Amino acid sequence: MTKADKYEKLVELAKRRGFFWQSYEIYGGVSGFIDLGPLGTLLLQNIMNKWREYFVLKHQDFIVEITTPIISPEKVFIASGHVEHFTDYITQCKKCQRKFRADHLIEENLGINAEGLNESELDKIIRENNLRCPECGGELSSVAKFNLLFKTTIGPYSYDIGYARPEAAQGMFLTFKRIYEISGRKLPLGIAQIGRVMRNEISPRQGPIRLREFTIMEIELFFDPKYPQCHLLPEVLDREVRVIPFSEEKATPLEQRIITITVREALDKKYILNEWLAYFMAISVDFVKSLGIPFEKQIFIEKGPSERAHYAEQTFDQLVYLERWGWVEVSGHSYRTNYDLRRHMEYSKEDLRAYRKLETPRTVKKLQVVSKDIPPKIMHKLLLMPPEEVEKSLHERGFVEVDGYKISKDSIKIIVEKKYYERFIPHVSEPSFGAERLLYATLEYAYREEDGRIVLSLPRDIAPIKVAVLPLVKREKLPEIARQIYIMLMKEKFTVVYDEEGSIGRRYAKYDEIGVPFAITVDSQTLKDNTVTIRDRDTRKQIRVPINALPDVLRRIIQTNTFAYSNS
Amino acid sequence: MTKADKYEKLVELAKRRGFFWQSYEIYGGVSGFIDLGPLGTLLLQNIMNKWREYFVLKHQDFIVEITTPIISPEKVFIASGHVEHFTDYITQCKKCQRKFRADHLIEENLGINAEGLNESELDKIIRENNLRCPECGGELSSVAKFNLLFKTTIGPYSYDIGYARPEAAQGMFLTFKRIYEISGRKLPLGIAQIGRVMRNEISPRQGPIRLREFTIMEIELFFDPKYPQCHLLPEVLDREVRVIPFSEEKATPLEQRIITITVREALDKKYILNEWLAYFMAISVDFVKSLGIPFEKQIFIEKGPSERAHYAEQTFDQLVYLERWGWVEVSGHSYRTNYDLRRHMEYSKEDLRAYRKLETPRTVKKLQVVSKDIPPKIMHKLLLMPPEEVEKSLHERGFVEVDGYKISKDSIKIIVEKKYYERFIPHVSEPSFGAERLLYATLEYAYREEDGRIVLSLPRDIAPIKVAVLPLVKREKLPEIARQIYIMLMKEKFTVVYDEEGSIGRRYAKYDEIGVPFAITVDSQTLKDNTVTIRDRDTRKQIRVPINALPDVLRRIIQTNTFAYSNS
Repeated sequence: MTKADKYEKLVELAKRRGFFWQSYEIYGGVSGFIDLGPLGTLLLQNIMNKWREYFVLKHQDFIVEITTPIISPEKVFIASGHVEHFTDYITQCKKCQRKFRADHLIEENLGINAEGLNESELDKIIRENNLRCPECGGELSSVAKFNLLFKTTIGPYSYDIGYARPEAAQGMFLTFKRIYEISGRKLPLGIAQIGRVMRNEISPRQGPIRLREFTIMEIELFFDPKYPQCHLLPEVLDREVRVIPFSEEKATPLEQRIITITVREALDKKYILNEWLAYFMAISVDFVKSLGIPFEKQIFIEKGPSERAHYAEQTFDQLVYLERWGWVEVSGHSYRTNYDLRRHMEYSKEDLRAYRKLETPRTVKKLQVVSKDIPPKIMHKLLLMPPEEVEKSLHERGFVEVDGYKISKDSIKIIVEKKYYERFIPHVSEPSFGAERLLYATLEYAYREEDGRIVLSLPRDIAPIKVAVLPLVKREKLPEIARQIYIMLMKEKFTVVYDEEGSIGRRYAKYDEIGVPFAITVDSQTLKDNTVTIRDRDTRKQIRVPINALPDVLRRIIQTNTFAYSNS
Repeated sequence: MTKADKYEKLVELAKRRGFFWQSYEIYGGVSGFIDLGPLGTLLLQNIMNKWREYFVLKHQDFIVEITTPIISPEKVFIASGHVEHFTDYITQCKKCQRKFRADHLIEENLGINAEGLNESELDKIIRENNLRCPECGGELSSVAKFNLLFKTTIGPYSYDIGYARPEAAQGMFLTFKRIYEISGRKLPLGIAQIGRVMRNEISPRQGPIRLREFTIMEIELFFDPKYPQCHLLPEVLDREVRVIPFSEEKATPLEQRIITITVREALDKKYILNEWLAYFMAISVDFVKSLGIPFEKQIFIEKGPSERAHYAEQTFDQLVYLERWGWVEVSGHSYRTNYDLRRHMEYSKEDLRAYRKLETPRTVKKLQVVSKDIPPKIMHKLLLMPPEEVEKSLHERGFVEVDGYKISKDSIKIIVEKKYYERFIPHVSEPSFGAERLLYATLEYAYREEDGRIVLSLPRDIAPIKVAVLPLVKREKLPEIARQIYIMLMKEKFTVVYDEEGSIGRRYAKYDEIGVPFAITVDSQTLKDNTVTIRDRDTRKQIRVPINALPDVLRRIIQTNTFAYSNS
């Protein structure tokens, strides 16, 4: 066990006990896809529910969750810019026909950071360094764009192109207008979604870190750009974040560029451009901490203009430190401005604007034509004239002239209307999380070895299995009582296992390894006084509790995060 | 409101209040896709959790949930038979090029039930009846197969074909071996999955009923065909099911063919061929009832040999009655035998068999070669000979002859081994639910009109929003207290709304319409004794409860389904 790094150890554990493994393994595996086993599925569900708690439920007065399809008609991703911009650069070996992601090839072979470089820049580096196919030594083709959208057709006609969504966000932009109406036309309005997304990566090779299909947890927070204030900001102003503002200078190691400042300072110094972005970044620190990843292992790094997605005016990636991969992105925080809504307005011709109440109602003059004798053509031109101009002419000359046609004072009325609202395109801040990466990071931070055994110290509230019920020995009535406890806890909606095989020490070890926080042991004293022991996974401390108090005691320990019991 | 049927009314309500609507509406909509709004998303989550309760959590000692990808490499669906069999029949207009589903065209235009007919049968009906294009009157092409899998490519090579899964099931078959090992090689073993699936329907036109992308809730229950007994069957033996066994005779109306019998009888009379199938059918009745769809509105209809999917030996569809669509399938119950595992064994060359302990260990003879002088070729042939034959020859002749080469007694040992296990391919029973159809059916059964208003009488435990907190008037401190209650309930993880706008009657009506089971009213008495009223949506009955007792009282009402409070 000494030589393997944490990643290797975790992958072994994950496979053996049922957290995750590469998909399609009986067919040799397909990279970029993972299966979540029974434990992985429960853990992911708990992570998703925790995200809902921190991001949606807590804000349920202005954030709602929706569900939109994965498959979208072509026009959605033409409008969003993904058909044009959601690409990686690819180069192909002229000899063996293998294809490679150009920036990765350069980074791996020359150690040059190639992120954000364009076609010709990448090409130049390949030529100048005479980079060749790493597989067969063949010559490499010139660099070309490769679109990462999975493409298909919808229905029986080949021209009805569809794509699998690479982000949930477009679902929120497309439905913004309807949700805005349903929610009573109020801003700020957050629309959240948890769902699968697909990105056709060229050659993903980092297990659960770079996936072609994964679960995204995303919010589009729509706000009025005239009132960009976040009403919840006071709650987080004094909280610290570790930030790396964008700098062209990349030579200094990441760690030395981290600035630890309060949210207040980050906004004051304009490191973070938008209050909603700042608010969600602060919440994200808490959320990621709640998964067991400490504050010091998290940073936010600002992306430069050429590194950002096409829709963003500012983007911070939230990174966590992983042993093998170094700093890895687990969430992105983008100020998307009104880009997406504006584009969908252009492409759909629908009005997706919101209403803003005017601070002082505006007076608007309007023409009303009384006479029915004016020819339609003249009428049309008349109505296009500024009412103020018509009024002036009527006042000064007694008539208004359109194409030589004179319209008298009596034919026209000038009416005055009050306008209470004006329309505008909302702006958007977006926090967006990759669930499977968080799952992996959570496991890595929970992993420790103790006396040659593995213990997964997962936070109790996200542990997949909460309780193991173990009769001390397979004698007397202990198994029978243990089974009754097992059934009781199952009815109380705990995830729970029953196990009577092997020594008690072996069984403790078996459930420590998958992060079960509580082991309940039924022993000879149980026969006397109906009490059992609860063993804490992390401290191995035991407390004795009456059987009928178990559900409440367990729930209280999970909720308060304090391992104790007093029957007073 | 009188002319519209329930479907129309529900679709209007669903759109206006945020349950569901057709996706991509700003681009004119794409049929076969729906968005779930805020209320629809919560309702679907509650339905999924309820399914987990009935099917997974209750059986957590032998059923586990997993998560596998939507996108699969081609070979998976070649092996499963879907590339060949997962098809509909299509005919194209030679004039306007429009394509139609042949069986639907026949059913709609000629009233002939065309389910299960093959290519040439459909073709014959079209020719004999001179059926023409319903859009332009053009001639129709001969009927051809159309594959319903959404097709794409994985990675940068065009030959790496991938499909979006049309069922979750293959994920369970592909991982069976691993889950079986993880779970300690025990059968029965159920593998469950909830996730999105895609079916490229030709021209879906039934709103939320026929979708190209939907959520499936599925279990593959693996059992030993030598021991096909379901250990939980006694729990459901005396329960009734409404069954229509398969019959070629289709003239009699469905309702007159229903047989109401106990699970015991259905098994005795061989209406249901497998105990696990019967067990899950009984559980399904309960589950669907728990969504508010009564027993009398559910039937199980057996599919005939030509109507069943290619993998099934017996299939029952569970149907519920819907006002517009008649009897509509909400779940399928298939006895898939060992078809899928067998196919994947063939195509992957992996051994996916399980182990069965032999009742009496079997004695097996084995050759052991002692001499090292035998040429490898001879050795190879020798080891392929039946040990019994070698033993006989040694006994009778003192040697055994292989290709003229004589091997003496001293060179060979016959050893006797005991075998405790044998291998076999498990069989599978599958219950499989479509979540969005259940959501629609749930809404339809909850829908009623009362005094010209809509009330959605959703079961309390699945209602999307549980509580509306309403200050009786916008005066004194009532709004302030109501807001505190709102925040308290939010912290207690209730879904809850606060509303102070408009008359109390109007507000009650507003929340009745979306099925909020509890309206809490803060009134002048609250100022005196810190109590509030809880109003029951369905009976309009009110009870008065101390504010601090609210969370427990609400939880108890939901759990016990009894609207009452006593402070003793």
